[in-house]
Amino acid sequence: MADALTGLRERLSAVMDLNYAASLLSWDQRTYMPPGGTTARAHQLATLRRLSHEHFTDVEVGRLLDALAPIADDHANDSDEAALIRRTRRDYEQARKLPLEFVTEWARARALSNQAWEEARRRSDFALFQPYLEQQFDFAKRQAEYLGYDEHPYDALLDQYEPGMKTAEVRTIFDELKAGTIPLLKAILSSGGVVDDGVLHQTFDEAKQEQFGVEVTQAFGYDWQRGRQDRTVHPFCTNFGRDDVRITTRFYPDFLSAALFGTMHEAGHAMYEQGVDPAFSRTLLSRGASLGVHESQSRLWENLVGRSRPFWQANFTRLQELFPQQLGSVDIEDFYRAINKVQPSLIRVEADELTYNLHIMLRFELEVDVIEGTVEVADLPEEWHSRMEAMLGVTPTSDAQGVLQDTHWSSGGIGYFPTYTLGNVLSVQLWERAIATHPTIPDEIARNEYGKLLGWLREHVHRYGRKYEPRELIRRATGAPLNPQPYMSYLHRKFGEIYGVSV
Amino acid sequence: MADALTGLRERLSAVMDLNYAASLLSWDQRTYMPPGGTTARAHQLATLRRLSHEHFTDVEVGRLLDALAPIADDHANDSDEAALIRRTRRDYEQARKLPLEFVTEWARARALSNQAWEEARRRSDFALFQPYLEQQFDFAKRQAEYLGYDEHPYDALLDQYEPGMKTAEVRTIFDELKAGTIPLLKAILSSGGVVDDGVLHQTFDEAKQEQFGVEVTQAFGYDWQRGRQDRTVHPFCTNFGRDDVRITTRFYPDFLSAALFGTMHEAGHAMYEQGVDPAFSRTLLSRGASLGVHESQSRLWENLVGRSRPFWQANFTRLQELFPQQLGSVDIEDFYRAINKVQPSLIRVEADELTYNLHIMLRFELEVDVIEGTVEVADLPEEWHSRMEAMLGVTPTSDAQGVLQDTHWSSGGIGYFPTYTLGNVLSVQLWERAIATHPTIPDEIARNEYGKLLGWLREHVHRYGRKYEPRELIRRATGAPLNPQPYMSYLHRKFGEIYGVSV
Repeated sequence: MADALTGLRERLSAVMDLNYAASLLSWDQRTYMPPGGTTARAHQLATLRRLSHEHFTDVEVGRLLDALAPIADDHANDSDEAALIRRTRRDYEQARKLPLEFVTEWARARALSNQAWEEARRRSDFALFQPYLEQQFDFAKRQAEYLGYDEHPYDALLDQYEPGMKTAEVRTIFDELKAGTIPLLKAILSSGGVVDDGVLHQTFDEAKQEQFGVEVTQAFGYDWQRGRQDRTVHPFCTNFGRDDVRITTRFYPDFLSAALFGTMHEAGHAMYEQGVDPAFSRTLLSRGASLGVHESQSRLWENLVGRSRPFWQANFTRLQELFPQQLGSVDIEDFYRAINKVQPSLIRVEADELTYNLHIMLRFELEVDVIEGTVEVADLPEEWHSRMEAMLGVTPTSDAQGVLQDTHWSSGGIGYFPTYTLGNVLSVQLWERAIATHPTIPDEIARNEYGKLLGWLREHVHRYGRKYEPRELIRRATGAPLNPQPYMSYLHRKFGEIYGVSV
Repeated sequence: MADALTGLRERLSAVMDLNYAASLLSWDQRTYMPPGGTTARAHQLATLRRLSHEHFTDVEVGRLLDALAPIADDHANDSDEAALIRRTRRDYEQARKLPLEFVTEWARARALSNQAWEEARRRSDFALFQPYLEQQFDFAKRQAEYLGYDEHPYDALLDQYEPGMKTAEVRTIFDELKAGTIPLLKAILSSGGVVDDGVLHQTFDEAKQEQFGVEVTQAFGYDWQRGRQDRTVHPFCTNFGRDDVRITTRFYPDFLSAALFGTMHEAGHAMYEQGVDPAFSRTLLSRGASLGVHESQSRLWENLVGRSRPFWQANFTRLQELFPQQLGSVDIEDFYRAINKVQPSLIRVEADELTYNLHIMLRFELEVDVIEGTVEVADLPEEWHSRMEAMLGVTPTSDAQGVLQDTHWSSGGIGYFPTYTLGNVLSVQLWERAIATHPTIPDEIARNEYGKLLGWLREHVHRYGRKYEPRELIRRATGAPLNPQPYMSYLHRKFGEIYGVSV
């Protein structure tokens, strides 16, 4: 059996190397690739994805897994080896359901679609992107059919990003959140409580913004020797092993929050990947458990740390030093209120904590409707506009501010968006458990120290990588299942206090 | 037979995609990769090289080539198809001689060795690099044995970079060059003619240096939509298809020539790759014919254009605009003499045109001696010092200025250096043939126009890619075999005039 395990590890190493290479090619496409490179890059990515799929779905992998089944099937066995075999077997069975040609063609189409989206977004012209998006939804539908599902085709898509999660479960959680959010939002908007965030809309030198972001994320614990930061239109985090985990950021010269909180957010993702047990390297366990768990990390650092009073007690003076003209005379409490201003708006990534989830719900509902066939891709811009109006009371004046704002669909990421809100929910559960264990964490944050918090996350989340399915990991880390109540309470507490309202 | 050709093209496409992906991983390693990424990157490169080798040497490729043999063997057939089959067959037969494990291990070792060299060079400590270099020479020797040779093991290495070239032939050419160079150099050094290059050793703003480089290479014809420029310790050109051809440059704040001529040089390489017939894309024909032919392009643009009077007639005013304090009062003729100053020196890439080849001869002789076993790797620093002293009359005071200055050996590039001088030789043959066809080329250069020159190179060199072996390509383009005499005459003419000597 030791031989079979060694054989399996060797196979997986090559698969992971191919996947990491493909990730680097994608990173390059979004950071530095000249426009001329598009076509060749699409071919290269398709070839790498095809070879990865071929290697992984080879019958020899099946034979090795069969030989290792006694370990996987022993439910008392909680070892890393047993988890590796179980996780590999699940992925193998899923991957075997997808025809090689489908995988290859989708990889090629994604690279071209992403490029088309960039162009369409720049020109704010949905028509340029529509055929590509139709193709992406078509791929997604075919993927759902290949993978199979019990209740809803969207389950199969969701499962790619959040293993074990169901559409119905998302609906329940989202309904609960909506029921808690809308009254609070109405109360805030009608309270007459005014938060002025004008201080964030001044001119901020890019190099100094970057400098502050580097200092903050270094203090958090992002290891810059095993990472770096580049500039992209849409910020993201990617990695090619646990020792090369990169983030990207966009800097606005006239709005401080985008890069400030975006950098903390991506560093939160990055610290997760940097913290996975090195013993899992080059196996399918060497990454985050799911996108939802991933987002719990990014949002925890962005919101629960970065938008908190203790963090700014430690850091506001430094920010004032960097921007004396803009912030020298600003009161720390006014700054805290500014960065937490609630304001229905058009762009998801710039939304406040409270309205953010409504953006996600919009996308989730549209995706489900297109998959179900009740909305056509061609109608998405209009549907987007009318539902934004209904839900948030704001209306995009262009496609770039509407349906074209996110990169996810262009890269085939359908079923991905719900994980953002699931991550928000989980972030508060994890945060409260960490505080329960180490009540001094807020005091330490007020001294710009994050060792206890990061240590707790490393111990209860990061190091496990994909060893446990999300449901199991969440139970182990928080002692409870995923539950929106702590998150809703947090939002009510925080924004109730800022706006002096209670619902 | 059409089916066999289609089958072959498909196979080659995947091989090329893997090779391009590996090239991007190497580019990233040298430009942006964080230090932590080294180990994982070595694994990734080894896997990509292994899969490329496996795919290319598969017996199915042999079967397809056998089916296509009637086309390849028809010597009257000068079609692209016939060339593709011939070139593929030759590469296939070569590749089949190398064991898979050897290829994989060498790829992994190169990535680690390159990283060790960077560290050793930074610390100027040969001992840190010595075990890696010994390993690289060992790999090279094994490669020569696997590939086979008639006269000298070095022939097999040389052939990787300059197909068809023999060690004995290089010796003959080098002897002829040395016989012409040494007396001219002595005459210059004893002439009392003083060229002052102090104007080049002032403080030059990096952004303005970069700006000038971009303008110049754009005027030459380097297509920035299909390329880009980054910063590295050792400048290079790499590509991932003909539509993504990247260069790198290093900028010195206190020396203008390095980036100025380095950028022209790399752009010369890049224009060659950008000019290959698009019909050859994703086949083994879609790159330069050899490193020597490649270097003929880079040196032509760097020296015959960039270090010429006509070029500076068109461009000196612009350079003065960018650097008014440094160059505003400098006479164009003094500038021309400064950039062509002959001065024996330690660093190859900063050497003048005349002494440059002596640097190459040193490396060629050392490589041959180590391969023959008459010099040990451990003795290279000392050998380097004493031979530099004997040949150029200068002695390095550190390993960084000596044996550690070049990246080539660290990447397994043994047999590579001679191609630099072969390229110099060829550059003048091509230049003279282009001028014979278009005598107005120098006048156009004096107006900052390069269309006729680039057009001639595109037509007679670039578009063919690897369709012809170097010997055949050179014969077709110049009407003659490779011949050092035009190059020697050019050097005597140019430097004889500058220094007022004749030998």
